[in-house]
Amino acid sequence: MEMTNYDLSTNVPTSFRNYATRCIGTGRLGLALRQEYLEQLAYVQKNIGFEFIRGHGLFAEDVGIYQEYEDDEGKIQVEYNFTYLDQIMDAYRRLKLKPFLELGFMPQKLGSGPESVFYWHGNITPPADENKWINLVQATLKHLLARYGEEVIDWPIEIWNEPNIDQFWKNSDMKAYFHLFKITFQAVRAVNTNFKVGGPAICGVDDERWLTEFIAFCEHEKLNINFITRHFYTVTSSKVIGHYRYPDLRDADESLKELQKSREIINRSEMFSKLPMAITEFNTSYSPDAPLHDTVQNAVYTAYLLSKMGETSDLYSYWTFGDVFEEKGIPFTPFHGGFGLVANGSIPKPTYWTFKFFSDLRGQCILKKQSIIVMREDNGRLIGITWNSGSVAKNIRLTIPQALGQATIVIQTVDQNCGNPLKVWHALGEPASLDLEMTQLLRRSAVPSVNTDISQQGQVTMTVQPNSLSFFQIQPDVSHSDRGFDYQKLI
Amino acid sequence: MEMTNYDLSTNVPTSFRNYATRCIGTGRLGLALRQEYLEQLAYVQKNIGFEFIRGHGLFAEDVGIYQEYEDDEGKIQVEYNFTYLDQIMDAYRRLKLKPFLELGFMPQKLGSGPESVFYWHGNITPPADENKWINLVQATLKHLLARYGEEVIDWPIEIWNEPNIDQFWKNSDMKAYFHLFKITFQAVRAVNTNFKVGGPAICGVDDERWLTEFIAFCEHEKLNINFITRHFYTVTSSKVIGHYRYPDLRDADESLKELQKSREIINRSEMFSKLPMAITEFNTSYSPDAPLHDTVQNAVYTAYLLSKMGETSDLYSYWTFGDVFEEKGIPFTPFHGGFGLVANGSIPKPTYWTFKFFSDLRGQCILKKQSIIVMREDNGRLIGITWNSGSVAKNIRLTIPQALGQATIVIQTVDQNCGNPLKVWHALGEPASLDLEMTQLLRRSAVPSVNTDISQQGQVTMTVQPNSLSFFQIQPDVSHSDRGFDYQKLI
Amino acid sequence: MEMTNYDLSTNVPTSFRNYATRCIGTGRLGLALRQEYLEQLAYVQKNIGFEFIRGHGLFAEDVGIYQEYEDDEGKIQVEYNFTYLDQIMDAYRRLKLKPFLELGFMPQKLGSGPESVFYWHGNITPPADENKWINLVQATLKHLLARYGEEVIDWPIEIWNEPNIDQFWKNSDMKAYFHLFKITFQAVRAVNTNFKVGGPAICGVDDERWLTEFIAFCEHEKLNINFITRHFYTVTSSKVIGHYRYPDLRDADESLKELQKSREIINRSEMFSKLPMAITEFNTSYSPDAPLHDTVQNAVYTAYLLSKMGETSDLYSYWTFGDVFEEKGIPFTPFHGGFGLVANGSIPKPTYWTFKFFSDLRGQCILKKQSIIVMREDNGRLIGITWNSGSVAKNIRLTIPQALGQATIVIQTVDQNCGNPLKVWHALGEPASLDLEMTQLLRRSAVPSVNTDISQQGQVTMTVQPNSLSFFQIQPDVSHSDRGFDYQKLI
Amino acid sequence: MEMTNYDLSTNVPTSFRNYATRCIGTGRLGLALRQEYLEQLAYVQKNIGFEFIRGHGLFAEDVGIYQEYEDDEGKIQVEYNFTYLDQIMDAYRRLKLKPFLELGFMPQKLGSGPESVFYWHGNITPPADENKWINLVQATLKHLLARYGEEVIDWPIEIWNEPNIDQFWKNSDMKAYFHLFKITFQAVRAVNTNFKVGGPAICGVDDERWLTEFIAFCEHEKLNINFITRHFYTVTSSKVIGHYRYPDLRDADESLKELQKSREIINRSEMFSKLPMAITEFNTSYSPDAPLHDTVQNAVYTAYLLSKMGETSDLYSYWTFGDVFEEKGIPFTPFHGGFGLVANGSIPKPTYWTFKFFSDLRGQCILKKQSIIVMREDNGRLIGITWNSGSVAKNIRLTIPQALGQATIVIQTVDQNCGNPLKVWHALGEPASLDLEMTQLLRRSAVPSVNTDISQQGQVTMTVQPNSLSFFQIQPDVSHSDRGFDYQKLI
Repeated sequence: MEMTNYDLSTNVPTSFRNYATRCIGTGRLGLALRQEYLEQLAYVQKNIGFEFIRGHGLFAEDVGIYQEYEDDEGKIQVEYNFTYLDQIMDAYRRLKLKPFLELGFMPQKLGSGPESVFYWHGNITPPADENKWINLVQATLKHLLARYGEEVIDWPIEIWNEPNIDQFWKNSDMKAYFHLFKITFQAVRAVNTNFKVGGPAICGVDDERWLTEFIAFCEHEKLNINFITRHFYTVTSSKVIGHYRYPDLRDADESLKELQKSREIINRSEMFSKLPMAITEFNTSYSPDAPLHDTVQNAVYTAYLLSKMGETSDLYSYWTFGDVFEEKGIPFTPFHGGFGLVANGSIPKPTYWTFKFFSDLRGQCILKKQSIIVMREDNGRLIGITWNSGSVAKNIRLTIPQALGQATIVIQTVDQNCGNPLKVWHALGEPASLDLEMTQLLRRSAVPSVNTDISQQGQVTMTVQPNSLSFFQIQPDVSHSDRGFDYQKLI
Repeated sequence: MEMTNYDLSTNVPTSFRNYATRCIGTGRLGLALRQEYLEQLAYVQKNIGFEFIRGHGLFAEDVGIYQEYEDDEGKIQVEYNFTYLDQIMDAYRRLKLKPFLELGFMPQKLGSGPESVFYWHGNITPPADENKWINLVQATLKHLLARYGEEVIDWPIEIWNEPNIDQFWKNSDMKAYFHLFKITFQAVRAVNTNFKVGGPAICGVDDERWLTEFIAFCEHEKLNINFITRHFYTVTSSKVIGHYRYPDLRDADESLKELQKSREIINRSEMFSKLPMAITEFNTSYSPDAPLHDTVQNAVYTAYLLSKMGETSDLYSYWTFGDVFEEKGIPFTPFHGGFGLVANGSIPKPTYWTFKFFSDLRGQCILKKQSIIVMREDNGRLIGITWNSGSVAKNIRLTIPQALGQATIVIQTVDQNCGNPLKVWHALGEPASLDLEMTQLLRRSAVPSVNTDISQQGQVTMTVQPNSLSFFQIQPDVSHSDRGFDYQKLI
Repeated sequence: MEMTNYDLSTNVPTSFRNYATRCIGTGRLGLALRQEYLEQLAYVQKNIGFEFIRGHGLFAEDVGIYQEYEDDEGKIQVEYNFTYLDQIMDAYRRLKLKPFLELGFMPQKLGSGPESVFYWHGNITPPADENKWINLVQATLKHLLARYGEEVIDWPIEIWNEPNIDQFWKNSDMKAYFHLFKITFQAVRAVNTNFKVGGPAICGVDDERWLTEFIAFCEHEKLNINFITRHFYTVTSSKVIGHYRYPDLRDADESLKELQKSREIINRSEMFSKLPMAITEFNTSYSPDAPLHDTVQNAVYTAYLLSKMGETSDLYSYWTFGDVFEEKGIPFTPFHGGFGLVANGSIPKPTYWTFKFFSDLRGQCILKKQSIIVMREDNGRLIGITWNSGSVAKNIRLTIPQALGQATIVIQTVDQNCGNPLKVWHALGEPASLDLEMTQLLRRSAVPSVNTDISQQGQVTMTVQPNSLSFFQIQPDVSHSDRGFDYQKLI
Repeated sequence: MEMTNYDLSTNVPTSFRNYATRCIGTGRLGLALRQEYLEQLAYVQKNIGFEFIRGHGLFAEDVGIYQEYEDDEGKIQVEYNFTYLDQIMDAYRRLKLKPFLELGFMPQKLGSGPESVFYWHGNITPPADENKWINLVQATLKHLLARYGEEVIDWPIEIWNEPNIDQFWKNSDMKAYFHLFKITFQAVRAVNTNFKVGGPAICGVDDERWLTEFIAFCEHEKLNINFITRHFYTVTSSKVIGHYRYPDLRDADESLKELQKSREIINRSEMFSKLPMAITEFNTSYSPDAPLHDTVQNAVYTAYLLSKMGETSDLYSYWTFGDVFEEKGIPFTPFHGGFGLVANGSIPKPTYWTFKFFSDLRGQCILKKQSIIVMREDNGRLIGITWNSGSVAKNIRLTIPQALGQATIVIQTVDQNCGNPLKVWHALGEPASLDLEMTQLLRRSAVPSVNTDISQQGQVTMTVQPNSLSFFQIQPDVSHSDRGFDYQKLI
């Protein structure tokens, strides 16, 4: 078996920008009225703790902000309804989340056409009346300022979603988008000049041209934006069968070049070279019906992404925290290839542990390689993550600082057998409706194994099985047994 | 490796009386005012669900029922305080538990001497004034009837605890106990003739003589008791080091003969031969400082006891549900050899899973052997428990009913590596104070592994590792995948 | 001031059928996925405790049971999705509610036309394909039976809603409804012959003719239904201004004649004269934008209805428990004339107390008059409700049984000043968005006043202010002060 | 009726130091393991929110830190047990409370004599071995630092409790206390020089001499203490009957002179004149069996104290938050004259509202008189508290700023009829055991009435009934009714 040696005895710092918990994606905002949604989000926040949350549908019909009525003279008048928006924002704040606002899609009655996206019909057309759009944006921001105070100024604002493909923006009309961007940007800044605004929220289709043109447009129009946004998915073609799709994963390094390229384009701008780049969506597949999302493979692949994305990006938002999500309709079964870190019933999927493990990294990075990261904490403890996306087991040998003495190691591992509820759900017959006993069994099957070891002559050796992900902590021999306690007598 | 074959294809019923969840022990009742106690009990009740709860200290100072004061003429008067008793009983009822009442120990001021037991000083002497004792017993029962209604009639009442040893009853004076029993029995029945009363609550010291004499006494005095009680512990000598004791386990079958003997003694009584025998306490060690309690070994040994005790006994109450328990003082560390199914922080110990697994048995027993029990549920599913207390692995091969087709098996296993938080706590350096991160890690390490398999040619084969305990469910090939879902594409 | 005397000293029983808590209405079932909805329902269930719940929208798009897809040969196929139905039913059962099932409206894709009702577009047309409708009904019931077991047999089933008006059933076509009723009835009974089925769920428009014809139809077709249902609202014309409507209340006795008439029609049927009559909806106004619902006047009027409806009806379901309700769209403010017993934020409205008070009635009725009901409990305590819908205060003098001695009275009162959060919300400036401080203040303002008194010479005198509702309890002089406690020293 | 006019139209600021929520007292720390205790504390923290908490018993037997054992050579050794201390501190921190540490009393085994105080036997003697005392103090602080980090440095430390009376310190021996103070002070500072330490925690007996001597001692010994502490109770003699005592209240202004005098003594010290003075306990009666504590009178009197104490003191800690308190034993009834702001069952007493109202004061004080305080918030709203401890009603007329226009007033009032659960409990027959219905009724009776009014010609007039306390908010005419909503149509 392959053996790789790393010498950690000298504690040389290395660079690692870990933004795994800065932002998380969500199904459309209106779903935040749902109990199951809020339970999943509470679970994720309690255990991982993201800072921002971003999703579509701020202006959708089920949030219901934009309303029209006929006045006594038969004239159409506009009024705003913030009842549900308040409930949604209140819920986020209770869970210690700040919104990363996406201004879109178009209220149906304000759209210039009937074109829409998703099962829930997000209208993707430019406004029929630009003033009404501007009023809507401004009224919404003013309401948020009135209710939540000055902190609203620091909620990032992104304009529209993926205008570079025609599913999300009619005809993927670049000029129309830039115009919308400009009037919206100006509307926002007219409310308060300190609002943080960015775009163009594009996905990876014709992205270089779009980004280049967007920057040129902002420079020309002197729109002093605060950040640049794009999305990042890493699959190629997909085979669709019934309710599901089975995509092929791209080579991760090949995929990551997209981000490097975007960063380079930004760097070339005189006006914006220092701006942060925010990946406001990323995942493997871009479709909520890809069972890949529920697998260990997804968790391992994502671990590598999390180790790398900070090299180019200042924020990256996994799409999404949970499986209450209706873009393709209502899922038929609890495991259905949704984007979520957790399945319905708050059952963590393997990729949940990828984020949990990265959220637990603390201290100074002292090793960052293709499949391992190690941090040193102030108290000398080493913690790290290692993964293996290959098909053969690998051995790792770490030479640890002398100060750790005879160190103990605790290793948490997610692989085919542990932390893999999909497998157990399959063995149960893939039930569409879970009863309490099944749910508890699935939760039990959804935790990593926890193993222990001790160092030998200043070295720690670990075997990393194929398709697995481990979090390890290497601590000094701290054992100071209570008077009379002797663990050796018990085994 | 040893291979044992069992043919389950014919579904022949066999007898198995499973009373694993009828009753559970608790630290002294006054501890039921504590939050940590109630959290542990809530955890156990939510997941296992016992029917009765029994503990010492109903009349202890911290429950505080019996109070004296000096009246204006300097005379000592008695008054009763039910404030805390109500809080305790309310808490049990909220958790769907009924008390198995133990009348004792003596209120300090009512005792005929200062002798006491435990860190919390339970007074073990006969009453200085028998009328005051009778009044106390009757006032307490009347209060319970007034507050909780007729259901109180069905709360079993046991008189005193282990009078056959002098730690618990001054001089282990048999005659004095029988007298106390008689006057107390009569006092209880005078409140309501339907109260269920039993004794003598003895442990395994000189137990045959005590039981024989007790029955003779009740027959002679025409005390128509409702059940006979005794205790059951299965260790011999213990080595004490510092705060801890390290006992030797007796052969389980040898131990169980104690219960057979007791049952035989009861059977010989003309008046009482049909009475139920209740084991109002049982465990391996009788001491709350035996780290054995926290081990997988304890869980495996207890599994065998649970498979056998119903053969002689109608109720058996594991001593105790949790680790809030102060008979030897306050524990110094979270794992300290306490009796609890769960450790402080509601971390399940291996023996918790023994009870969880037995509580999940349903249906008709079709196999009951030295290290395996199998039940058939109405829907055809087979569920079972198997364990291995030996030092070598064993193979089991089950021939299953044809109707199950290509069955899937889900196996939950507790062994040295899974469901064994003690090991991980040791690797963490045996910390006396747990922080949240440690507690979560320990909880994660405290769940069984969950593995899956499929049957081959109508047979299911399982390997049972040494010192392990497994719960398995064998279900028909029920897979009816959702349209387009193909698990094989994901592995 | 008027003084009315009642002599209760002789405890003569009188008849009072109190079904206040048998059933409660709800906004469309899909709303039961919402957290705010479930919080309001939990609040109501914890404090009042209804047995059944009934609402529209079982087959609506947001529950999403009925789904179609194109198969590989381009043929439309049907499939059922029970994901959300399970979540909804699970939630009801957790809150100890059983559904009173209303089969309707039509899934959009199954409708024979586009006609719909409400903001949420419930399709009101007959099925385009009767077999698909029958399959849908049967699949749904079979799924419920599989998941929830035999208890489902006792969930009442009502077919459609208010077919006698064309808002709810295309052209209010009686013949078409009767046909739908027949095929649906037969489909239900084909699943299980013990299902309880009823109709015609009509409102008070042309109701006598509909009821008469419906009974004749069932008799003729030998449909052995289990109960008869209708609705009951008590307002006449309404003035609509902006978002709100201001209806006029009918004389209550005049209104109640509708129910008597219905009962008489049923009584005349040879086949059905013994059947229960269920009022599956009732309220004052039938519109969720009538601020009347939020007033004390509504509470007082409803108290009278609750005192009378049992005379004709065996179940009556107030429409609705809470204010998460979208038939007219999303409310703009927390108080908006919704049907709910509680406003958003779980703030009880005056009518909540009407139900709370009626739910607290226990024992034997000994007085039932136009504005007072008194019950005697087994322990001798008298409890009652009195109300005053007039504009002048009234005095009541009760002569109480001697056995009560010097009785104490505790009176809880809802009137303009107490239990009237609408008034305080108005004083706060009618805010659309409540902050926590406002919500707490409104909750504080939403409880009845609690006053105390003592009887004088065997008589209790109460003043009932105009537009008020009181719950009183008259208890024997039970004071047995604790040793040394003297309340008189404190006032 | 008396009418007092106040002109608030000019908004002249006045000084008001409002420290009502800086600190709160508690029963002995060991009680913080109890569920009822924690529920009451959670209730108080959620609604009022104190910053620090102070109580006795850090070193008491039930916290159990100090332990002794005999080693193998028969020598007594000391060990420390922090299991319960951690549970207690964890609980406080979860409730966002920081401990105000009181070092005392003496562990029984460390005491130089058996003398003790309270039902729970706090040992009041100097240490038998000063080194062991010093080690105990240092080990405890080091443990807290290790577990909770640097924030521990800011937890104030007070040495002992009321050494000036012999109930709490053997012989009230001043010299012995000063010696204890010195060695303890030095032990604390030896752990970390930044710890904040103070004393002498005296009550009002011979207090001037004690304070003067204490300051002289610290100056002479160069103990650079951080604050001065004393206690403050305001009753004279008490009549004791049975379980209860009925004290007489002193004139409040007369009482407050004690604090002025203490402040003056401190001011005279060259070394300490700038030090804060902390009132680490205050209440009316100093005994937990004075029904006065449960009355409206207590609430009104305390309101005046809260309006005045900031004039001399920098912290004042009401003794205590709740009624789980055992200094005189276990209470027999839910209302029993305990110190608590809330009674058992989390039923708020009148004095709870005094603290709730003072905690809601925000903004700039613009009026502070004998029975009224008014603050102006940034948004122009006026809020205030007014009270009447006399026996006749008073009228208050406030001239408000023109900017408020036609202002609305919301007034919350606690008086004999509202917010007075004691009265309702009495009417229920003073039950010792509350059932759920009684508890809910008592809670309902325990909230203030909420009334509304509007200003007339720029003036607000309020009638303050005898023995009452009101919180009022005067807000600009902010009503902007939703489209079509007309409150006038509803009344």
